[in-house]
Amino acid sequence: MRRRVAAARVARLASVDPAGRLHVVPICFALDGETLVSAVDAKPKASARPQRLLNVRASPDVALLVDEYDEDWSRLWWVRLRGRARVVEEEPEREDALALLAAKYPQYRDEPPPGPAIVVELTEWRGWAAVP
Amino acid sequence: MRRRVAAARVARLASVDPAGRLHVVPICFALDGETLVSAVDAKPKASARPQRLLNVRASPDVALLVDEYDEDWSRLWWVRLRGRARVVEEEPEREDALALLAAKYPQYRDEPPPGPAIVVELTEWRGWAAVP
Repeated sequence: MRRRVAAARVARLASVDPAGRLHVVPICFALDGETLVSAVDAKPKASARPQRLLNVRASPDVALLVDEYDEDWSRLWWVRLRGRARVVEEEPEREDALALLAAKYPQYRDEPPPGPAIVVELTEWRGWAAVP
Repeated sequence: MRRRVAAARVARLASVDPAGRLHVVPICFALDGETLVSAVDAKPKASARPQRLLNVRASPDVALLVDEYDEDWSRLWWVRLRGRARVVEEEPEREDALALLAAKYPQYRDEPPPGPAIVVELTEWRGWAAVP
């Protein structure tokens, strides 16, 4: 389960917005023990303040899903993580999170994300596989 | 946006469980206008009553994410859908939903899902692409 999550290139982050509505967005992430880090990257955004940051500040309890689709459904699996998320803007913690991301993604080495990091302290791992 | 969603093979369904905790799970789905249908399929499950059914009954407001990861981040995109979900156990509505799924997935033609359908009346489409 841990191996699959660590190797995955994308996760889907579910959070709740300040109005109580569900929010889901794909994120790049890196895993460090029971900590998961993500960043707000430099790609063009509809808004300068990504919704996920507002959500995490208002409601830290998040869920993340890592899975891989395959047309052979006997190969399907998923891992769902839960945890408490924080927005990290201060150094050196922000830089430490970005270093984990840069180690995993060459894209981040080429263009370090300018925004804050999101750091999730994981509290629950739950997995499923079509073939256990 | 609609073309990408209709062609996608998997979506991630976010809901809230009766205790108020976030839940996310990958689903196969078919799109029919402003209606999205999914099913509880026959794959082995940890529980005979999938959590998503309990959640949708308690909290019909769901969010769905369709996206595709690519190492070329200029190709990234996502579409987030929101809507109200219902668990459908009665015929002919259940069978109608399953027919949409069978038309899209040969896997469902080989092994029709025995459980209820989930039918989501979509209320919001929101999309993002790295290259608009």
